[in-house]
Formats: sequence, structure tokens, C-alpha cells
Amino acid sequence: MAKKEEDMGITVKKADDMPEWYTQVVEKSGMADFYAPVKGFMVIKPYGYAIWEKIQNYFNSVIKKHGVKNAYFPLLIPEKFFKKEAEHAEGFAPELAWVEKKEGEERLAIRPTSETVMYDSYSRWIRSYRDLPLKINQWCNVLRWEVKQTKLFLRSREFLWQEGHCVYETEEECQKETLLYLQEYQKLASDLLCIPTLAGQKSEKEKFPGALRTYTYEALMPDGKALQMGTSHNLGQGFAKSFNIKYLGRDEKTHTPWQNSWGISTRLLGALVMSHGDDKGLVLPPKVAPVQIVIIPILFDKTKEEVLKECKELKNTLGVKYEVELDDREEYTPGWKYNQWELKGVPIRLELGPKDLDKGQAVLVRRDTGEKTTAKLSDIQKEIQKLLEKIEMNLFSKAQNFLKENTVEADNWNDFVKAIKDKKLVKVPFCGEAECEDWIKDKTEGATSRLIPLDSKQPKSKCVQCGKEAKVFAYFSKSY
Amino acid sequence: MAKKEEDMGITVKKADDMPEWYTQVVEKSGMADFYAPVKGFMVIKPYGYAIWEKIQNYFNSVIKKHGVKNAYFPLLIPEKFFKKEAEHAEGFAPELAWVEKKEGEERLAIRPTSETVMYDSYSRWIRSYRDLPLKINQWCNVLRWEVKQTKLFLRSREFLWQEGHCVYETEEECQKETLLYLQEYQKLASDLLCIPTLAGQKSEKEKFPGALRTYTYEALMPDGKALQMGTSHNLGQGFAKSFNIKYLGRDEKTHTPWQNSWGISTRLLGALVMSHGDDKGLVLPPKVAPVQIVIIPILFDKTKEEVLKECKELKNTLGVKYEVELDDREEYTPGWKYNQWELKGVPIRLELGPKDLDKGQAVLVRRDTGEKTTAKLSDIQKEIQKLLEKIEMNLFSKAQNFLKENTVEADNWNDFVKAIKDKKLVKVPFCGEAECEDWIKDKTEGATSRLIPLDSKQPKSKCVQCGKEAKVFAYFSKSY
Repeated sequence: MAKKEEDMGITVKKADDMPEWYTQVVEKSGMADFYAPVKGFMVIKPYGYAIWEKIQNYFNSVIKKHGVKNAYFPLLIPEKFFKKEAEHAEGFAPELAWVEKKEGEERLAIRPTSETVMYDSYSRWIRSYRDLPLKINQWCNVLRWEVKQTKLFLRSREFLWQEGHCVYETEEECQKETLLYLQEYQKLASDLLCIPTLAGQKSEKEKFPGALRTYTYEALMPDGKALQMGTSHNLGQGFAKSFNIKYLGRDEKTHTPWQNSWGISTRLLGALVMSHGDDKGLVLPPKVAPVQIVIIPILFDKTKEEVLKECKELKNTLGVKYEVELDDREEYTPGWKYNQWELKGVPIRLELGPKDLDKGQAVLVRRDTGEKTTAKLSDIQKEIQKLLEKIEMNLFSKAQNFLKENTVEADNWNDFVKAIKDKKLVKVPFCGEAECEDWIKDKTEGATSRLIPLDSKQPKSKCVQCGKEAKVFAYFSKSY
Repeated sequence: MAKKEEDMGITVKKADDMPEWYTQVVEKSGMADFYAPVKGFMVIKPYGYAIWEKIQNYFNSVIKKHGVKNAYFPLLIPEKFFKKEAEHAEGFAPELAWVEKKEGEERLAIRPTSETVMYDSYSRWIRSYRDLPLKINQWCNVLRWEVKQTKLFLRSREFLWQEGHCVYETEEECQKETLLYLQEYQKLASDLLCIPTLAGQKSEKEKFPGALRTYTYEALMPDGKALQMGTSHNLGQGFAKSFNIKYLGRDEKTHTPWQNSWGISTRLLGALVMSHGDDKGLVLPPKVAPVQIVIIPILFDKTKEEVLKECKELKNTLGVKYEVELDDREEYTPGWKYNQWELKGVPIRLELGPKDLDKGQAVLVRRDTGEKTTAKLSDIQKEIQKLLEKIEMNLFSKAQNFLKENTVEADNWNDFVKAIKDKKLVKVPFCGEAECEDWIKDKTEGATSRLIPLDSKQPKSKCVQCGKEAKVFAYFSKSY
């Protein structure tokens, strides 16, 4: 039989060569295919897509609670729309893919994001304060023709995401909800993905083209690079003015509304792989695992029937509450299967052989620690529930310890440079100016400001690079 | 206050001018926006998208049951892929939108359907019979640059759909499942959308480019035109050969597998509007209605508080099982609200005023018949459940009677032409040849073969047009 690459396990250690390790884990676990026929595009395979669907389901119920409704807007955007908001147009111009078909004389681009095409509709939909707040979200594909090296999930020319676009009567409401969705994102990261994050504001240089303020939440990857997990933009009134969105207020006068937009993407799958994975492969948090429990029967000729029967019963019982796979393939050894399901990151492995059956027990093996326990079959559901909760807590607290241990402060250039070299996330006093940030990036070979904490007070010290008065504290690091 | 178009109701009768009626209903009910900035593209508004999500949820659970898994493949397809399957390439060539960016020298087109890009991956994923059946589905957007007049949901340049793509060891299994998904589609149409359909095979002329056999299910719209609701293709081994998909069989020899593909799209929303809508607007079957019950309180100053309190309680109680909206806006009269929610097709309206409250009852109004009943508040849930079931049955049986009454048989040209003129779906003996079908279309100003029933026996009569030996019975009509 032809041997598949997935059969061969991960051949490098995470600590030795993280990029190569990442590629192998994503591919061999069956999350995505690296051999997509067009450079920079990815095939999200069923195992990866199932994780994305869990993120979608969770987040759909969150936004529904906040009164957001899903909709769908066109893939192609006329050139004139991009021209309406100058900063936005300039920011996205290099990454646009134009199509050869035109609308009359008008060029059309595949959406890199949908502000413009949505706000054109909004300008017709919104008449009075009674139409506000307008809260719409769409799940869709977007295209950004990246010139940098692409990397599955983390930087690809096409990705899947949600983009929420809301319109409000007041600045206050807009700002409040801009931060609300940011909080919900952080909650998704911690509760669903077991990834702790830092939230804050982007610097002038790093903010979204056309936004008043961009907020971000970021996680620190094991190689010391920060990963932007998603953003929430307070767009102010800029787009509303450019797209002529107005409303008749409670005072019977015409006003310009306030807007925000916010998004998370399949990038989260990359964060998941890097944060929790180990030398054996993927380690999935229980709430996003497509398979939460895999049952491996230990089969001998004489006892096969009874063992299989019990395993099937377990699958049915546990299947009511959990996603359970019974791997009863006879052409593979249990050991081969252990490796295979460890590679796929399944949180709990349940082993059951004739001796276990005699004792009325099963062996439970945790993917995150490798720890083995036996559990009475009569208590199995309770034990599994406890174990899943333990796994969640362990994954989160391990990642949280890592974040804490690798976040440092610096108030002078030498300490700062050393910390960046040591792959730390570094909090420094910062003047906030784009030019200074360019210098920092240049001199540190790639460190950028990741975020300004929401509660940042003005430092009493000078900017770590230029020595001018510092305006804020900012976290710097290299990043994905 | 600025008056919205949605406030103004439908201004034409369905029987008088169905195209104009359709446009108004789709727009004014809030399903979709006609003012999309690029010709032939649509904005699916939250009310329309919520219906699509219900179709997605239903169908996801159906295919999951059959072992199909969701995935996602790239939006852009290299030109060389189209060239691999000659018929397929020729069929889609006129509708492709190419992008200006290239992959090396290779032109890239936005997907009109994903056979080619998926099967390229399949050729690497499939090694042995153990990898079969491979059953993958994707929900995505596709682009077909229609030159005909576009129409929201029914014929647009971009639409949303699901495309299932399965690979099997044997011809028999492939054919069986090709028909299985067709049956599931028919079930979706009848159970969820309350639309009866006829299923059958497409003629040589109408089959999918590259398919061995195309199966279709079609509904008859009130204007006598058939609507293709979705298709399931037995692709045979053609694509597998072109894309070099092979597997090592149980006999240790290399074999070419069998494939099918099957899809339904946002077109179904158009079928829904036309099948059930009336002069007041949309009429939605309960299972796809984004709002199943709307509560309208009848408010007077003195009794407002008690009435609103009871209405809120009803919303909470009924909200556990149904999707309920409480329209307590004070700036609109109850009468205005009745019109508004009728326009949006909400299955049941619940009215409650002070007199009702005194009597411990509420008024229930059916959207499909306008019938009013009163129900004890203590029995309300039971009454509503009964009513929803009645509405479903009524919608389906009305549509079924219409289909029966407008399906006729003809065995000679004159009767056939008369029946087409009378806007019937006509069953005739047919030679099956493409040339003859062209003639029929030409002479009848647009009638095409819709389907050949699955159990069609060879007729003893001659082809209704050319007089040659008839091979099959076929249904002809004009169509969308």
C-alpha cells in the first residue's frame, strides 16, 4: 500500500525549527493542504474546517446576543468606492486583485475587506435614528495579494473571516461597542482556544487605513513573536462622510453617524497550532476539537467481539454529549493509532482491552500531558468531563505562564534591544510617532509596536528610542 | 420623517405582473437589495440571509448524517485546470471572470464551480480504497458572468451555494449516492420550503459540462415556468481520468474511481418567494421563517402596562421554542404593523389588547389564509404549534395542487404547443436529441426539456416534434 505522508509523524522538534514544525503539523494533522495549486492560497481540509466551524458557531451566538445580524455583500468592489476614502484606498491598493470584466468603464476588485461596498448600501438603508444602531456581520472570503512570504492560516492571499460593521447615533455608543467586540474576541480566545491575550490600541502607524482608532488583541507565540488575533476599529465619522451616510436625529436635524468594524479570521487556527502543539503534533483545546475522545479497542481474536461491543456502546453513550470517534480499523496496530490521534491533537484517548473489560474499566490518556488514568466504566462520563476541564485549564495556564514569563519592561535602548533579542514582548515608554517606530523596526530587525494598553498612563520617562517625551507605554516585539 | 420604500406595500398584483411583483416583494420584505453597486450582483440582507442560514443548518445536518464533511478550497482556479476536462472548460468559458494577477504565466479565474480545483487536491489525497468514499462539501460564493438579464436570487453573477464532491470505488455506489443527494434535496424542498418538486434526468443538451448524467429536481412556478432547484451529477470517471485520480484497490491493482457532485444555491430563496407569496408580500413556511410569530400589543394609555407585561411574558415563554418578535414600537399603529409583518411573511401574528387580556385570550392570525382565531392564553403554545403545522400543510398542498393541475400530457405537436402556450408543464414522448430540442425551443419561443422521469419507459409513440422513434418521456416547459 502507498504510504501517506501523514503516516510518518512530525520529523522536527518544535523548539529546533518552529517554521518547519508548524508546516508539518498543519499538513500532517489534516488541517490544511500546502499543495494548493495557486501560490499563497490554501485548501482548508475537513479537520481544519471543523475547527473553524466551531469558532463560527460560538461567535454567531455571541453576536446574536448583541443584536448583530448576518448578511452577505458582493465579492467585487468598484474602483470608485475605494477612491472615496483616501487613506483606505491607499492602504489596500498594493494588495488588490482586479478582474478583467468591468462594470461599464469601472474596474472591479475582489474584496480585501468590505467597508466600502457595505457602506454604499448603508447610505440607502439608514434614514433616521430609528434605523440605528445598525449591526451587520458577514462571514466570507477575502483576498489580499500579499507579497511577503505566505504561510498557511497566518498569511495567505485568500482567507476566511467575519467582518462586523455597525453604525451608531453617538460617539460614545460607538466607542463602547468597539471595545465590547474586542472583549468578546478576548473571551473567545481564552474560553474556546485557551489562548491568553493582551488587548490594546494600535499606534498611528499600525492602525487600519481609514480608522480613527484600531484596537487589537495579541497572543505571544512560543518563538517570541506576537500574533495579531483580530482587530476592532472605531471608524469615527470618516467613512460615513465619504459614503454620505446620514440620519435624521431625535432633534429632527440631519446628523452623521459613528461606525465601527471588527474581524477575526482563519488566522486563529494558526495561533491554535503554535500555542498548544508539541513535538507529537497538534494539541487541541476540548471546545474546538473536531474529535474530543477517540476510542481505541485493544483487539485479540478471542475477545474481539466483547471488546468491540463495549466500545460501540461507549461511543453511543459518550456520543450524546461529546464528539467521539471509534477507531476500530483492523489494519493498524493500537500503537500506530495512538500516534495518529496524538498527531491530530485529540484531547482524550480511551483505550479498552479485554483485561480492562474484565475489571469494568477503561484507560484514559490526556493528550496535553500524556498522563494515564483508569476510570470505572460506570463513572466514565463524569471522569471524562473532569478530564476535559483539567485539560482546558492546563492549556490556558501553561500559555498564560509563558506570556507572563516572556513579557518584560525596559526603559532604555540597550535593555530594550536585549529583550527583543531574547524574544520577549517588551513594554516601553514610547513617543508614538510613526517615524520613530520605523527606526525601531529597522534597528531591531523587525520589532514593531504591538499595542498600547487601554489603561496606559503617560510615562514619566522619555521614549525608549528617540528620547523625546514619551506619550504612552507600548508593547513591542517581532510579529507574524 | 423620511418615508422608506418598505413602508409602502406591494403596488402590483402577483397575477398581473409577476416579475415586478417579485422584485417588490424581495426588496420590500428586506430579503435582498436591488441597488447593489455592480450590475448582476446582489446584497443579501439580514432577513434573506437568515432564511439561507436555516437552509444551511438543515442541510449540514443531513449531509453530516451521510458522512460528508465540510472543507474550503481556493477562490481562484488556474487556467490549465479548466483545460483538463474539455467539455467542462467549453461549458464555463463564456462565464469566467479572470483576474489581472497571475500565477507565473498562468491566468486565474474566479471559480464558477469547484470540480477542477478540488479534484487536483483529490489526486494527491486518494491513494487506496481505504481513502474511499471521500465525501466533501463546501459552502461558498461562485461567480458566473451571466449575459442574460439578471434577477435577484434566480440569476445573478455571484451566488452562494453548497457543492458536494464525492469519490467512490464503484460505479454502483456512485450512482446510488448521486440519487440519494437528489432525494435529500427533494426532501429539503418539501419539508423545509413546502415546495413539491419533480425529479429526473437532464437531456444530453441540458446536462452539466463534463458529467455522465445530470439529475435535477424542478418546481413549477405560478407563471408556468419551471425552476431548476438544484442538480446532482454522476460525473462518471471523466474528471478522475483528466485529473489523474487513482486508487489501489482491494485487489492490489490500480483503479480509476467514480465521482459525483451536487449543489443547491440561494436560488432556493427565489423559489420560496414565487411559490408562496401573495399580493400582500412574502408568505414564509414556518421552518424557514426568521420570525415565526410576531406579537402586536394593542396599546391604550390606561392599560398599556398590563398589556405590554403580558406580551413580554408571551415572548419569553414562546421564545423558548419559536422565533418570536414583539413589535412594541409606539410610533406605528397596529394596522401599519399588520401590513409590515404580512409583507415580511411571518406565519403567525398574535394580537393582544386589554379586552383579550380580560378574557385571558389572544387573537392568532394566519399569514397564509388570513384566518383569525382566538386562543386561551393557557393553551397558547399548543394552539400555535397546531397552527404552524396547518400552515405548513396548507402551503405544501396548495403548491402540490397547482403542480398537478398544471402538468399535462401531449402526444402530438399541436396539443404540445397549445399546452406550452397555456403555461403548462407538458409530458411528451421525445427522441432525446439535442438538435430536436433546439427546434422545440425555437418554435415554442423558449420551452426546453426540464427532465426525464427516473422511471421513464420507452414510449410506444413517436417524438412529439421530429416524428422519429421516441426514446423517453420528457417534461417540457419554459423556465427560469
